[in-house]
Amino acid sequence: MILSKKIVVLAYSGGLDTSAIIPWIKENYDLNVFALVVDIGQSFEDLQDIEKKAISSGAIGCQIIDLKEKFVNDYVYPLLKIGALYEGSYLLGTAIARPIIAKAQIDFAKKIGAVALAHGATGKGNDQVRFEMVYASLDSKLKIISPWREWDFKSREDLLKYLKEKNIPTNATKKKIYSRDENIFHISTEGGVLEDLWNKASKDCWVWTQDVENAPNDPEYVVLGIQNGYVNSINNVKKSPYQCLKQLNKIGSIHGIGRIDIVENRLVGLKSRGCYETPGGTIIYQAIRAIEQLVFDKDSMKWKENLALEMSHLIYDGKWFSPIRESIQSASNVLSEVVTGTVVLKLYKGSVYAVQKKSVNSLYLRSYSTFSEDNVYKQSDASGFINLYSLSTRIRSIQKK
Amino acid sequence: MILSKKIVVLAYSGGLDTSAIIPWIKENYDLNVFALVVDIGQSFEDLQDIEKKAISSGAIGCQIIDLKEKFVNDYVYPLLKIGALYEGSYLLGTAIARPIIAKAQIDFAKKIGAVALAHGATGKGNDQVRFEMVYASLDSKLKIISPWREWDFKSREDLLKYLKEKNIPTNATKKKIYSRDENIFHISTEGGVLEDLWNKASKDCWVWTQDVENAPNDPEYVVLGIQNGYVNSINNVKKSPYQCLKQLNKIGSIHGIGRIDIVENRLVGLKSRGCYETPGGTIIYQAIRAIEQLVFDKDSMKWKENLALEMSHLIYDGKWFSPIRESIQSASNVLSEVVTGTVVLKLYKGSVYAVQKKSVNSLYLRSYSTFSEDNVYKQSDASGFINLYSLSTRIRSIQKK
Amino acid sequence: MILSKKIVVLAYSGGLDTSAIIPWIKENYDLNVFALVVDIGQSFEDLQDIEKKAISSGAIGCQIIDLKEKFVNDYVYPLLKIGALYEGSYLLGTAIARPIIAKAQIDFAKKIGAVALAHGATGKGNDQVRFEMVYASLDSKLKIISPWREWDFKSREDLLKYLKEKNIPTNATKKKIYSRDENIFHISTEGGVLEDLWNKASKDCWVWTQDVENAPNDPEYVVLGIQNGYVNSINNVKKSPYQCLKQLNKIGSIHGIGRIDIVENRLVGLKSRGCYETPGGTIIYQAIRAIEQLVFDKDSMKWKENLALEMSHLIYDGKWFSPIRESIQSASNVLSEVVTGTVVLKLYKGSVYAVQKKSVNSLYLRSYSTFSEDNVYKQSDASGFINLYSLSTRIRSIQKK
Amino acid sequence: MILSKKIVVLAYSGGLDTSAIIPWIKENYDLNVFALVVDIGQSFEDLQDIEKKAISSGAIGCQIIDLKEKFVNDYVYPLLKIGALYEGSYLLGTAIARPIIAKAQIDFAKKIGAVALAHGATGKGNDQVRFEMVYASLDSKLKIISPWREWDFKSREDLLKYLKEKNIPTNATKKKIYSRDENIFHISTEGGVLEDLWNKASKDCWVWTQDVENAPNDPEYVVLGIQNGYVNSINNVKKSPYQCLKQLNKIGSIHGIGRIDIVENRLVGLKSRGCYETPGGTIIYQAIRAIEQLVFDKDSMKWKENLALEMSHLIYDGKWFSPIRESIQSASNVLSEVVTGTVVLKLYKGSVYAVQKKSVNSLYLRSYSTFSEDNVYKQSDASGFINLYSLSTRIRSIQKK
Repeated sequence: MILSKKIVVLAYSGGLDTSAIIPWIKENYDLNVFALVVDIGQSFEDLQDIEKKAISSGAIGCQIIDLKEKFVNDYVYPLLKIGALYEGSYLLGTAIARPIIAKAQIDFAKKIGAVALAHGATGKGNDQVRFEMVYASLDSKLKIISPWREWDFKSREDLLKYLKEKNIPTNATKKKIYSRDENIFHISTEGGVLEDLWNKASKDCWVWTQDVENAPNDPEYVVLGIQNGYVNSINNVKKSPYQCLKQLNKIGSIHGIGRIDIVENRLVGLKSRGCYETPGGTIIYQAIRAIEQLVFDKDSMKWKENLALEMSHLIYDGKWFSPIRESIQSASNVLSEVVTGTVVLKLYKGSVYAVQKKSVNSLYLRSYSTFSEDNVYKQSDASGFINLYSLSTRIRSIQKK
Repeated sequence: MILSKKIVVLAYSGGLDTSAIIPWIKENYDLNVFALVVDIGQSFEDLQDIEKKAISSGAIGCQIIDLKEKFVNDYVYPLLKIGALYEGSYLLGTAIARPIIAKAQIDFAKKIGAVALAHGATGKGNDQVRFEMVYASLDSKLKIISPWREWDFKSREDLLKYLKEKNIPTNATKKKIYSRDENIFHISTEGGVLEDLWNKASKDCWVWTQDVENAPNDPEYVVLGIQNGYVNSINNVKKSPYQCLKQLNKIGSIHGIGRIDIVENRLVGLKSRGCYETPGGTIIYQAIRAIEQLVFDKDSMKWKENLALEMSHLIYDGKWFSPIRESIQSASNVLSEVVTGTVVLKLYKGSVYAVQKKSVNSLYLRSYSTFSEDNVYKQSDASGFINLYSLSTRIRSIQKK
Repeated sequence: MILSKKIVVLAYSGGLDTSAIIPWIKENYDLNVFALVVDIGQSFEDLQDIEKKAISSGAIGCQIIDLKEKFVNDYVYPLLKIGALYEGSYLLGTAIARPIIAKAQIDFAKKIGAVALAHGATGKGNDQVRFEMVYASLDSKLKIISPWREWDFKSREDLLKYLKEKNIPTNATKKKIYSRDENIFHISTEGGVLEDLWNKASKDCWVWTQDVENAPNDPEYVVLGIQNGYVNSINNVKKSPYQCLKQLNKIGSIHGIGRIDIVENRLVGLKSRGCYETPGGTIIYQAIRAIEQLVFDKDSMKWKENLALEMSHLIYDGKWFSPIRESIQSASNVLSEVVTGTVVLKLYKGSVYAVQKKSVNSLYLRSYSTFSEDNVYKQSDASGFINLYSLSTRIRSIQKK
Repeated sequence: MILSKKIVVLAYSGGLDTSAIIPWIKENYDLNVFALVVDIGQSFEDLQDIEKKAISSGAIGCQIIDLKEKFVNDYVYPLLKIGALYEGSYLLGTAIARPIIAKAQIDFAKKIGAVALAHGATGKGNDQVRFEMVYASLDSKLKIISPWREWDFKSREDLLKYLKEKNIPTNATKKKIYSRDENIFHISTEGGVLEDLWNKASKDCWVWTQDVENAPNDPEYVVLGIQNGYVNSINNVKKSPYQCLKQLNKIGSIHGIGRIDIVENRLVGLKSRGCYETPGGTIIYQAIRAIEQLVFDKDSMKWKENLALEMSHLIYDGKWFSPIRESIQSASNVLSEVVTGTVVLKLYKGSVYAVQKKSVNSLYLRSYSTFSEDNVYKQSDASGFINLYSLSTRIRSIQKK
């Protein structure tokens, strides 16, 4: 295909924003727009439809790339394995999606010889930073187009009016209460009633998961097999990490698991409120922690929490492609080598309880911690231990006098 | 009272172990035993009974000291305010009780001129270390008697037999399945079926809290007022921190809140399994976190997690009376100054959800995070921000080529 | 004084940049300029001269505020006490000067009812961020004027030409090789030959300190008294912290002490090279560390290093007026309470050696660490200690088989 | 060789202590003693002599294993690369020697079918813990004999008398003032005059390095090539890391480099004073830091300091063979991948100055940090950056009113 104009690769979702971006770029830049759809498990319309939609919006082409397995293996699991929770509770479901999408854009742009990249993230959010940090990491030569920081549109109405002027069909409606982001790991909901913190999240703030009041009255028990930090079987049926996550999303959603309703500090200095649903991720998170209890010594447990804290901020802050992320992930992988075992989880009314657990690498042995004599632990050792353990404390006490 | 022998102050609980310790010390040391009962909210028999019991076991005296309010204010709250969770989940209910008891022993010993201290902690556990670390900190001159590391008794049967020989009455029975520790903050259960990790915790492993399946089918909403990190009102009724904790224990227990069943790394190198119930503490923990979301900036949130991690290990490891604990608590107090506000919590089937929250110190303002223009945040600033934020990343990318 | 125009308070140094800023603001804003000189120990011309100069540049007034003692006590010492070194070596001499200057500007602006603040920091450096972070912290209502980001001047030549056009006298010359910043704590030198990292720093890169080759061939011994982390006597003569620092600058400079030549990461993403001289600060830093060795236990030493690392980045990054800085400083102050003692330092050819040290709070006692028997340490305790200390390690080893 | 008795492998040095241990074990245990000498660069007498000496003391055999290259590559460099300094200054020269010696003992014991391990570390020091932690990690089945904790000897005199009784020749003298440990990385000196902290270290406290006053009056410049964190050339001559360290020890010693005289916190709770000489290590440490300045971004620099702090305590505390050490080393290795370049160091009178430096991975580019316009950094971006960077600060300031 010989094109008279150079190409920009747009991270295309099929939604109103990216649909408007196509004609807007064509009008404001001397560029053709290629729509790239990265499939990481978000629920979108029939795939053919999204291609048609992109073309009818004016794109010169649309490519759908399936990265679902890769997303779960190479992006989601590094977070789950180390247990990264941003500000104590957020499993980073949106943050972790950005690097894989942005990298796919760059890879595709290189393949087709494109000269620019565009995304539909708004000017007040984290995602613009995350997209552009990846662009900066992987190819700082490509031009970046960030329409929400460039155009004068301020609202959905503006975008709808613009599309109408351009005769581009859309099934978007004026009223869209919430801003949402979805992938196989989570769905987020912001805006609407949530903007007033004194409002309870309403029923329609939640998409995937059952209200806990409507969740089954009987608990469900699920057996997870874990290998080196990856859940690879459910009820003794082996599956890929992606397939496991998908199935656990279903099971977890039924029991109302994985909801959080938080106010968080955005990277750009604002606070915002979000309702996040991560049912399968929450179950996997708990399952990994349960095995860690058996196989990590005290130092490893504490060190892991340090790594998780650092990792959570790095990922939230868009620093996936960075030496420090690789360093932390490497440190985490060493620890995860022993996270192998089986956990029985009880799922009930929004909660996950690890009720049975075992591991070939367990450091727990029944006989060690009971009162009866054994060969490993001699109670008399405790006196010597305490005397030295408290020695500097005793010296301080003595010197004070 | 003129005594022919010097005195040891025993941390007395009225249980089998400390009952046997009284005659054993008298027999093995040339000492009188004074039984000190520190009331930190544990449920014990009628107070007169415990005194009688101590005397009938051979103590020369028994003193009950009520430190319930002090325990909650000065020991429990420093942990709740910073959010210390040992190994990710344990609120440190037993660990935090040791320093106040041991300090009370020392204070009392000084008052009556005693020469020794004794405790009933076993030789495989953390508590012996915690007791003796406090002794080392506050008065390294007093002799320490730790019967479980000294005598030859190995079981309850041995102790019962010994008491019988000594004609000391006891209502203890041969069969006590679980080892328990209780105070106003929590109750712990170890031993019995829990020793096999593949056993589910049985119904009788739990003492305070309702099974979630039996918890009410309707959620309960509770309004907590928080001032500088302390919960000081429930449903708009002002109460002391202790009274609030007490009431929240009741409410939380009904809804099955605050149970954990974990394997932890003991300070002495062993792993052990425990079932811990901290209903009120769990509710307060969540309430404080909810206000923090409104009032802490990003740096404070991350720093707080560092402090909490350090604090959790310090307290678990018996280092309450240490410069580093005072340093961390001081750092925490600075942050907590702004933790003031109101939270509405939904309690349901084992879970606590912060559904509404507000604070006079909130850094969230609706207008800031919405899409509409405002004076505080200009979207155009984001380009400059991203350019510098990603600058070293871009430079790395450029230099690589 | 009734003024027809509102006032901007300029952080005025008397140098070329801030001299040009006065007429430029008057020309470009409808404002009078008030020149504020904050004296934190920088060497400037006769004070009357600087006032005259400001007036002759067009300022409506000039005020000199002496904050030297306050600067050393309240800004420099919090860094020295905790031992903050940015990226392992930089004592933060420029970074720590910004908050006190910017706060003085705001205080003065409030006093005289000014409406704006201006500074002469360039658009590629850290200082613009540091100034404006303080403005943001303390009064976000005042307008900020940052001429280097606003005007079109690009060089000293441009500024000189502009001043000539405006008939403003200046003794600045076209050729100024280095960019410098000075206060009682340090002097920095950037630019010129330093821009090529393969160039050695030339003789003229150093201002305060003697080249080590020319330093005296005999060592000098100096006795410092330290109280709660503050040096308060030199050779047994009591002085204020400021006076001590001033004298130690002189002594240290003679011996070539306190030079570093580093490449650092600026807050704005660039790397830059600087030669920093901090003679007195380096001596004080070493003296405090020497006492810490005597009085800090192992936990405190490690915790202190964590605090120092956090503090160094906070201060470098312009976050002086922040909850996290207050939190860390509070944590640091608790530790410093015991940092009291006497150190004899040997100063020789660029190096500081603590050759003798003592403290009333010392945890070192000769008898403890020697081989002879004592009452505090029993060698037999070591077996018990090692057995429990290595227990989880042994268990891992056993379970592996 | 058919032996009537089982064998213990002794970590043998040829000194008085381990010489006495041989007959003592034979007398007190039903074991033959095999003397293992691990050569990690300590200066000992002619090798044949040490073998003879072992045999004449009663050992059934003596084996010398040369692990000098391995020691430098696999033990010393992991510390130098991350920059581990215990309590701010100690390069861990003794601590890092223990794991390689203890591992060699175990490997050898397995090879010859020995049943026990013995070491000559005293009962008040760190080394007993370090030896036995390795034993616990790698083979918890072998019996451990720690004579200093077992026998009744208290002094050198006791040992000399014992050897005389046993007719074992020795050239040890009654008076040995200092306790020393030596390997290719460092030599340590404890005891004697050092026990009084108010004593200056005397001339004979230092073994390897020249007094700075006697060091050459002219500086020496040395060019080090660094590859992935390893110094692999000196003045453009390629050598192995071990050979480089050896040569830099010589050069550094001449210039009085690498001396420290500190009081440290021992693992067993005591403080002790030591004079450590690490001339080559100090030079290498500085050289690596110099390249890091060019190639690490701000996040990596800070993270590295965290890793170094953790590593320093782990190694000091005898935890070489542990998951957390492997985790940290792995994290460190990722960062070190870019630590490649050339440094010119000036060595003069006890100091090391990195005066020139370059790296193919440098993130510094002259044009970026100068005032002239460039394509990478636009000064106008700084306004946007500052506005968002200070946003939460401004919001706090606004909300306060």
